[in-house]
Amino acid sequence: MTLLNKQWCVGARPEGKPKPSDFLYKESPMPVAGEGEVLLETLYLGIAPVMRMYMMNLPAGGEPPLDLGDVIHGRGVARVMESRHPDYSVGDIVQGQLGWQTHKVSKMTERERFLKVKHHELSYAHSVRILSMTGLTAYTSFFDQGSPRAGETVVVSGAAGGVGHMVVQMAKIAGCHVIGIAGGAEKCAVVKRLGADAMIDYKNDDVAAKIAELCPDKIDIYYDNVGGEILSTCLDNLAYNARIVLCGSISEYTREEKFGLQNYAMLRRANATMHGYFVYNYLDQFDACNAQLAEWIATGQMKPLIDELIGFDKMPEALIGVYSGNNIGTRCVKVKLDE
Amino acid sequence: MTLLNKQWCVGARPEGKPKPSDFLYKESPMPVAGEGEVLLETLYLGIAPVMRMYMMNLPAGGEPPLDLGDVIHGRGVARVMESRHPDYSVGDIVQGQLGWQTHKVSKMTERERFLKVKHHELSYAHSVRILSMTGLTAYTSFFDQGSPRAGETVVVSGAAGGVGHMVVQMAKIAGCHVIGIAGGAEKCAVVKRLGADAMIDYKNDDVAAKIAELCPDKIDIYYDNVGGEILSTCLDNLAYNARIVLCGSISEYTREEKFGLQNYAMLRRANATMHGYFVYNYLDQFDACNAQLAEWIATGQMKPLIDELIGFDKMPEALIGVYSGNNIGTRCVKVKLDE
Repeated sequence: MTLLNKQWCVGARPEGKPKPSDFLYKESPMPVAGEGEVLLETLYLGIAPVMRMYMMNLPAGGEPPLDLGDVIHGRGVARVMESRHPDYSVGDIVQGQLGWQTHKVSKMTERERFLKVKHHELSYAHSVRILSMTGLTAYTSFFDQGSPRAGETVVVSGAAGGVGHMVVQMAKIAGCHVIGIAGGAEKCAVVKRLGADAMIDYKNDDVAAKIAELCPDKIDIYYDNVGGEILSTCLDNLAYNARIVLCGSISEYTREEKFGLQNYAMLRRANATMHGYFVYNYLDQFDACNAQLAEWIATGQMKPLIDELIGFDKMPEALIGVYSGNNIGTRCVKVKLDE
Repeated sequence: MTLLNKQWCVGARPEGKPKPSDFLYKESPMPVAGEGEVLLETLYLGIAPVMRMYMMNLPAGGEPPLDLGDVIHGRGVARVMESRHPDYSVGDIVQGQLGWQTHKVSKMTERERFLKVKHHELSYAHSVRILSMTGLTAYTSFFDQGSPRAGETVVVSGAAGGVGHMVVQMAKIAGCHVIGIAGGAEKCAVVKRLGADAMIDYKNDDVAAKIAELCPDKIDIYYDNVGGEILSTCLDNLAYNARIVLCGSISEYTREEKFGLQNYAMLRRANATMHGYFVYNYLDQFDACNAQLAEWIATGQMKPLIDELIGFDKMPEALIGVYSGNNIGTRCVKVKLDE
């Protein structure tokens, strides 16, 4: 049997939520590593909302533009199968920009941001989704931009998502009072078990009324994974010197027309700050962050929720599901099945 | 002749820009200081866009709500005419919440935020408009929230206004490259003379095209006095780690419907921060700020533009003019004429 490289490519530009026909499956001959290159075998791929932006060819994450038929961008964990690169040996485990494919030949350029995977006591699924850009995002955005202090009130939207469920737990570690926002009773129950002091189910509750009820001293930190109306509601309820961390805007990604934030000037009344977060600004903290996360996981202070789908064929379904909100925790796909 | 207290009161809630019939003139008997009170004689009153908000009874600046017929809020400089308060003596010069009136009896409460005027080598007009909340605003917002570094590109909207023309000069003192935005050739010429490296006339130029042309390395600090479309344009042109200081939103104040900021998530792409500024958070810096401003004025590094109208009867006209953009520099009204 000839070994093939399996790939998921941009079949069509998604309109609204992505659908199966937006993804194009291809098989191509196994690539060969040239001088200065490595051949990587994908073990796990992470799934993140931004991938729809890649497919639409919207600028995001500093990745190069994609034509129809190009392999979709995606980070994951891989094993070095073959190396003609001085810094890598066969068997090394790395994480970085692999794309939606089972194999990749790479010169391990700066742009692909490959990092060697440490903390082997944790699984590769942890590596791809926790000790990864997701964990780095949650950790550095919450601590560097949010600047939490014990006793403060923290509201986290997208609280059952990959970044959100980690931020909820970090906020508890920091001694904060934590209100999570998620869609549906099941997600709310899960996040509550992770330590949230109270939950708001945005699909069934009046968010503004619940915020008023649950945050009598207003919001010190609003950690935003969704944008739109919930961001606007939180802007109306800021405590003095509040911080907003803009991490994601999933509610915006599939809107026909963008949400217009009419009450941005509420930042002035509260002398508050809204930080836009871009993960690649924080790569120098990667090792320190992972060491801290691994410690919290080891001591049980942090319980990662990893929502793992099995099999490379599940990639489109995995991303489509994120947009219908069916994931709890951080989502990844196990690509190599026999380990 | 009986001495009267002259007052300008809320005659009607302004719809859109304020007009003469929104102001109600009253005369009342001279008030008398009781135990623990002082009688103040107003020398100067400052004029600020926020005063229209007071008249509309919109929450602003932490001032108490106003009914129709109430004296309009306003800060100014006054002389103590009579004192039955242990901390004040006859002849003291103070600045604080006087309201639009020639005399006030006050218990000098916390809420009125009275401060004794120092730096007597400068005029009272300087006290009311430069060594005042206006100067404190410009100084602390620009330096604390803007965090300027030499060589950075700073864009200042409302650059010919009270706060704006000071920020332009502070940015030059900080070694920045400064682009001002103002309405009309005359204002642009004035701000250019104050040191701006280039000006954009928003009434006649294509602001987005000029920003692109004048900021090839994008914007490091956008100092916002206007909000709305210009804020949105600057959000599209942020350098990495940029800071936006939201000081005022005069373009918003008279809109029928509020502007919806659709591109707030651009903060994420630039890892940028948007700070809302509220001056009363910075009162502890008042003396240090005034000492610095007085020094810059003495050395000629800071040239305050004071747009002074003469006579208490000019108060309505002074505020109406701010909303038609006819002021250059910081506006005040000389209330007591014979000194």
